[in-house]
Amino acid sequence: MRINLFLFACLFWFSSVHAQELQSPNGQLKMTFKLADGGIPTYKLDYKNQQVIKSSALGLELKGDNKGKDFANYTANDGASSSSLFDHFTISNTETSTFDETWKPVWGEVNQIRNHYNELAVTLQQEQTNRQLTIRFRLFDDGLGFRYEFPAQRDLAYFVIKEERTQFAMSGDHTAWWIPGDYDTQEYDYTESKLSDIREVMTKAVTANISQKSFSPTAVQTALMMKTDEGLYINLHEAALINYACMHLDLDDKNFVFNSWLTPDAVGDKGHMQSPGKSPWRTIMVSDDAREILASKMTLNLNDPSKIEDTSWIKPTKYVGVWWEMITGKSTWAYTDAVSSVQLGQTDYTKLQPNGKHGANTANVKRYIDFAAKHGFDAVLVEGWNVGWEDWFGNSKDYVFDFVTPYPDFDVKGIQAYAKSKNVKMMMHHETSSSVRNYERHLDTAYRFMKEHGYDAVKSGYVGDILPRGENHYSQWIVNHFQYALEKAAEYKIMLNAHESVRPTGITRTYPNLIGNESARGTEYQAFGGNKPNHVTVLPFTRLVGGPMDYTPGIFEMDVSKINPENTSHVNSTLANQLALYVTMYSPLQMAADLPEHYEKFSDAFQFIKDVAIDWDESHYLEAEPGAYVTVARKAKGKNEWFIGSVAGENGHTSELKLDFLEKGKKYIAKIYADLADAHYKTNPQAYTIKEVEVKLNSKLKLKSAPAGGYAIQIREK
Amino acid sequence: MRINLFLFACLFWFSSVHAQELQSPNGQLKMTFKLADGGIPTYKLDYKNQQVIKSSALGLELKGDNKGKDFANYTANDGASSSSLFDHFTISNTETSTFDETWKPVWGEVNQIRNHYNELAVTLQQEQTNRQLTIRFRLFDDGLGFRYEFPAQRDLAYFVIKEERTQFAMSGDHTAWWIPGDYDTQEYDYTESKLSDIREVMTKAVTANISQKSFSPTAVQTALMMKTDEGLYINLHEAALINYACMHLDLDDKNFVFNSWLTPDAVGDKGHMQSPGKSPWRTIMVSDDAREILASKMTLNLNDPSKIEDTSWIKPTKYVGVWWEMITGKSTWAYTDAVSSVQLGQTDYTKLQPNGKHGANTANVKRYIDFAAKHGFDAVLVEGWNVGWEDWFGNSKDYVFDFVTPYPDFDVKGIQAYAKSKNVKMMMHHETSSSVRNYERHLDTAYRFMKEHGYDAVKSGYVGDILPRGENHYSQWIVNHFQYALEKAAEYKIMLNAHESVRPTGITRTYPNLIGNESARGTEYQAFGGNKPNHVTVLPFTRLVGGPMDYTPGIFEMDVSKINPENTSHVNSTLANQLALYVTMYSPLQMAADLPEHYEKFSDAFQFIKDVAIDWDESHYLEAEPGAYVTVARKAKGKNEWFIGSVAGENGHTSELKLDFLEKGKKYIAKIYADLADAHYKTNPQAYTIKEVEVKLNSKLKLKSAPAGGYAIQIREK
Repeated sequence: MRINLFLFACLFWFSSVHAQELQSPNGQLKMTFKLADGGIPTYKLDYKNQQVIKSSALGLELKGDNKGKDFANYTANDGASSSSLFDHFTISNTETSTFDETWKPVWGEVNQIRNHYNELAVTLQQEQTNRQLTIRFRLFDDGLGFRYEFPAQRDLAYFVIKEERTQFAMSGDHTAWWIPGDYDTQEYDYTESKLSDIREVMTKAVTANISQKSFSPTAVQTALMMKTDEGLYINLHEAALINYACMHLDLDDKNFVFNSWLTPDAVGDKGHMQSPGKSPWRTIMVSDDAREILASKMTLNLNDPSKIEDTSWIKPTKYVGVWWEMITGKSTWAYTDAVSSVQLGQTDYTKLQPNGKHGANTANVKRYIDFAAKHGFDAVLVEGWNVGWEDWFGNSKDYVFDFVTPYPDFDVKGIQAYAKSKNVKMMMHHETSSSVRNYERHLDTAYRFMKEHGYDAVKSGYVGDILPRGENHYSQWIVNHFQYALEKAAEYKIMLNAHESVRPTGITRTYPNLIGNESARGTEYQAFGGNKPNHVTVLPFTRLVGGPMDYTPGIFEMDVSKINPENTSHVNSTLANQLALYVTMYSPLQMAADLPEHYEKFSDAFQFIKDVAIDWDESHYLEAEPGAYVTVARKAKGKNEWFIGSVAGENGHTSELKLDFLEKGKKYIAKIYADLADAHYKTNPQAYTIKEVEVKLNSKLKLKSAPAGGYAIQIREK
Repeated sequence: MRINLFLFACLFWFSSVHAQELQSPNGQLKMTFKLADGGIPTYKLDYKNQQVIKSSALGLELKGDNKGKDFANYTANDGASSSSLFDHFTISNTETSTFDETWKPVWGEVNQIRNHYNELAVTLQQEQTNRQLTIRFRLFDDGLGFRYEFPAQRDLAYFVIKEERTQFAMSGDHTAWWIPGDYDTQEYDYTESKLSDIREVMTKAVTANISQKSFSPTAVQTALMMKTDEGLYINLHEAALINYACMHLDLDDKNFVFNSWLTPDAVGDKGHMQSPGKSPWRTIMVSDDAREILASKMTLNLNDPSKIEDTSWIKPTKYVGVWWEMITGKSTWAYTDAVSSVQLGQTDYTKLQPNGKHGANTANVKRYIDFAAKHGFDAVLVEGWNVGWEDWFGNSKDYVFDFVTPYPDFDVKGIQAYAKSKNVKMMMHHETSSSVRNYERHLDTAYRFMKEHGYDAVKSGYVGDILPRGENHYSQWIVNHFQYALEKAAEYKIMLNAHESVRPTGITRTYPNLIGNESARGTEYQAFGGNKPNHVTVLPFTRLVGGPMDYTPGIFEMDVSKINPENTSHVNSTLANQLALYVTMYSPLQMAADLPEHYEKFSDAFQFIKDVAIDWDESHYLEAEPGAYVTVARKAKGKNEWFIGSVAGENGHTSELKLDFLEKGKKYIAKIYADLADAHYKTNPQAYTIKEVEVKLNSKLKLKSAPAGGYAIQIREK
């Protein structure tokens, strides 16, 4: 007996130093950490006893010739080479804990979020190098997050990452919705394919962009959405990307293993680190129900709580803007065609012939202000208000904008007073042209200018290759810049909407003044040739996992040539689909992007955009399938009012909804904006119908969406 | 007769469109510009009918795959390839002019400077590409300057330089005093050799440095000093290096032709240009008298006049500092040894054990303030006053300093008040650790902090490899930064002394708040193993051509082990030589660099440092030979007082001076500080003598200097 117990204890001890198990609070997810032969840290993940992640290695490869004085030159015997932070480990410590807390976001899809996980922190020791590495796992009901931590230590005070060596071994040849791995852009249509087809499709998937850099025929970006043949939904992303390089996933398509691939800097290094320090969280969401992927708050939960104490100045914003008219080519950002090369501070615009098509002129801006005031919009965005647009594009120009000098026809003070008199805010635009050092040099001055002139939100842009030259949009160096601009904006109480920035990773929890990013293929591409018709049925599963998107929907005129005869692009969406986007594409920042005259032409449909809320108490994902359809119901914050939006892909969709979220005993009017039966995104996009029906708790609605169609519903108490 | 005249006219016309001649005002220098076969622009230079520069090509090679939208894709037929801005030219215009003006510098070797030259501007047209290039030549009595200008033009609005193609064809195998071409440091001893020996000696010449990048076995930096076998002195440098990459000279040692070699950026490009635009001036000083090279004001004259209107805040400064004690290793910049890795804003220094050797502590600083006040010094520099020095070096650290947070033992306000009460200024120190973006992020805050605490001058440093990583100290990108910091300092009325910066090129005329640079091997290296004994007889011919150097002389104790037993370095200079440096190494900023106790020990010699002026009405170079000796007499500004300094090389020197600059009819006392007969920099450096003699106009003095010795003389009215 005693001997058996002893053996049992040994076995238990033996396994316990080699395998560590972690379960989610509801027990459905199980993560196992283990040191494989050679002291390689590995993990695997099961969901309801199905394999999600097969045994996968963890760790980092360091740059061997690091000149840092604490990076000793170890000879590679049997022991770890100086470049290894991925093998020859032993476990020196493990700690488990549980966390369960509810917190309130400043704005969001819901007004409170539960953060509930079981945690395992494994500290590894590399004997030959005297290095320590901690891997912290947090297992939620909706998925796993883990990150690397580098405790303060003399033998790893400063180090350079050559590559992170995190693996995600897939259990099979899943279907994936992906965009090509790229160091500089995410503005690709999504491709739906088997993992095994990525290599073949890649060339076609890499469409042209002003700034792009492919690096592997099988690399994809995150968030990556997948579905197994067994119907399991898996999503890979990262959370809290701060002071680290953005992670891509490079597929080993023989074994269906994703290997982390970080974005390099100008010399090819993947990260400069200091201990104590940490990596971002690598996240794996799992469910057999696609709706749970959309509803997951894991990315936010893995970020630090808000660092902003007084958040009263952070306000969800519905806006219009002098923008679509330039995107379509009807008007221009530039003021003149009379100069090919601008020198800020020297070029005298008052002496140059205006081109007569400058969109950001005072009269036009006032027209938008009037429109915003009339229809209850919070703000007006104006692009092209400031000097420098004549040569901003494609010239790798250093001192390209100063962010404070208006064109002769843009009356800063006059517009400020006019907007104020109409109770409309002006929204600033900072196109940086990716001249990042120039932007940082002007940032304080630019932010101060905003405050002095009544602008409290800014849309920033990073179009074109990055300066300093050689850097990439998503390298650690430039990720650091995006964070710098965000934190400085918070100091100035400025809300930020950063376009062409790194895709978000939940940092909006810590800095809720980050009210939006683009960082994906947005509505503008509908005027650049069109997006795939099912694009908006994919984005919630990919781009929106990390944070809201300034998708700028609300296009009513799908035939762009009606705006600009030289632009034959077509918006691949029905009008009803455009209305639904205000609900399906969650964002605290929502634009009615079309020209005022198009809204006036369809004022009944426009009413939905005016009525729709942009901040929510609750959100219920009613049905969802990546690439096919997304239907969500949301309760407006502080009101007993609900909105439902549904978008469909190429094949359209029929919904059978049960309104099981309404309040018992109350009567409601549901105002339904839907495709007509013969609507089609290509041939008949503006065929919509509006009808009202009375509904109550558990009422059923059957609604049909056209190809790239949808519907939008407002439900008010009767 | 008529036919002959006609032929004559044709010949005249023919030669006049192919060869353009320019003469210096005194006619001794002659420059000829010519288009060689293939439309290649060339120039040559003669001095007193001797060849200085043989026929040499001009132009630039552009990057062919420039993505700029104005860089059209020209097919290379017979015509110019798209990369050529160096051939297939015709002359479309020439303009000649003369300029003669006298201007007053804010501070200098002299109180007024004559700017007198003949100018030729040749405009070239490249037919196939429709490009224009102007080459402007200015011929002074002391040399030639020329630069490229890119007139505003649509077909060359934005372009990228692949390499500048300026040649300087030498007439023979001259002797040169040179340092290796390097993208990141100038801190090399000078080598004296024939041009033909450069290749062989190069490896030995490239001594170790924390940040260095060689690129060619025959490249050297400018200013380059040469002497022909015929006794002609030639100096090559550049003037007005603004928004362009620093130029090195790569020697074709078969033909003795120097080819310009610009410093690349992180991706290997050599310059991003916009038209209208211009290159710096390439300068060629010539004389058969070495003293005229030293006296030349051509570099300043080629720069724009001062952009600073009110210069009352710009003051020549004599200072001491908490510095040499750290350089020698007696004390430390760092406060503690208890932490290997600092995180600014998180590391709590009040909880860390001080190392007891921190130089910048309040008591020690006050000691220096007392010393400065007692001996009439204007300012005290303090290095190591601010947090972050524990891990600043060799870690490629981004957020390395914040420039405003003092160590616990440095009382900012207390020291400010104490210095003020003693009528002594505090001098700021900004070591950037080459983390340039970090410095720029903090620059306004750092400059404001200075003004708030009574600091109006700052010594900045750029030790280590540049961040952003991949950039070089002397690339266009970082040259732009040095200019940015200088111009912003001027806005704050701050004087700047930039170490490890690009070597100066006369910009002090335009921004006279640039009161110094190091940008060469300075006195600190005497504590890092020693400088060559004749180092200071070379520097005036090389480093000082572009501007003053903060050489920080005045070391009295040559045996460094007396300060720090672990440092066996020896200062390769006699004490008298150290005194002479205050006169021979012209600088408006002069440090008495040694420890106060050493000055107290030799207070009679120290008297010279206290008495020497640092701003001048006149300067007369009495005798000079590069590498051997330099003797100069200067008249103190606004006084009838003169100072003479002389420094000698390895072989010592005997001077026979005639004081032909004194005022007629006046009697003077000359106080002479000189080497004793048995003095020697190595074995007997502190053997000096002080004596007074009466002198007057044309008095003769015979003085002997020891090896690496010298003498210093103060001449006051009797």
